[in-house]
Amino acid sequence: MTGKTWAYEDFVEGASLDLGTKHVSAAEIIEFASEFDAQPMHLDEAAGKASILGGLSASGWHTCAMFMRMMCDAFLLDSTAQGAPGVDHVKWKKPVLAGDTLSGKLTILGKRQSRSRPEVGLVSMRAELFNQHGENVFELENTAMFLTREAAA
Amino acid sequence: MTGKTWAYEDFVEGASLDLGTKHVSAAEIIEFASEFDAQPMHLDEAAGKASILGGLSASGWHTCAMFMRMMCDAFLLDSTAQGAPGVDHVKWKKPVLAGDTLSGKLTILGKRQSRSRPEVGLVSMRAELFNQHGENVFELENTAMFLTREAAA
Repeated sequence: MTGKTWAYEDFVEGASLDLGTKHVSAAEIIEFASEFDAQPMHLDEAAGKASILGGLSASGWHTCAMFMRMMCDAFLLDSTAQGAPGVDHVKWKKPVLAGDTLSGKLTILGKRQSRSRPEVGLVSMRAELFNQHGENVFELENTAMFLTREAAA
Repeated sequence: MTGKTWAYEDFVEGASLDLGTKHVSAAEIIEFASEFDAQPMHLDEAAGKASILGGLSASGWHTCAMFMRMMCDAFLLDSTAQGAPGVDHVKWKKPVLAGDTLSGKLTILGKRQSRSRPEVGLVSMRAELFNQHGENVFELENTAMFLTREAAA
């Protein structure tokens, strides 16, 4: 038996997982943007206010990274995860602004065992992040690989 | 006239842009993963070697962030970019390993002016990153918004 709580068998189609919450500070928005996405609306409050985003706003890639951290903390680091071949889509639906508190939900869309590698199962999921006003700011769908409980033993 | 080199009019369907190169160090792989994606194969050489990735490998989200930085440096910060509503797909085709040097290419797939906001044009693009062996490690397609030259004036 693997010591991990989450193996392929533990994901149930239609089930939802709580991804917890994440406060987004101006400092971390600026730090991420300075390294990876130095567009003015991600670096400066006045430039953000002047843009269509309406305030100092996180790079969309920063939101992806924060989602990943939420998923790691919620269950992924305690799972048999083997990575993912990619992402089916990402929707940056509303700006993520400095001071926002995000909450996340993951819904299992489907699952199947790999034909070529039966020790691996593929789990399709939709992730959604909401801000403190209940607005859906982010959606992502992808398929990740998890070892079966037996293979991880 | 805007002072920016790249406005909506400057993107040509079928044209390719060079995204330059990016060396990927073990230290930056570990730094990104520690904050956003603390799976063992992104933190530790031995764990990476034991995984299907075959070595200390960048989080897929780190690769997205490095791509964004390459795009910023190549042209985006000198453009009328207004952000993007999301990403159509991302493919993490091969591991990005510590010591790799990535090179990037952007191909313009199509463009059209927004019907609801004629001052904005939508540019669809495919980005590809290659490692020093010429292997395609990453592919992304999305549509980004750019002001027209007149609107940005």
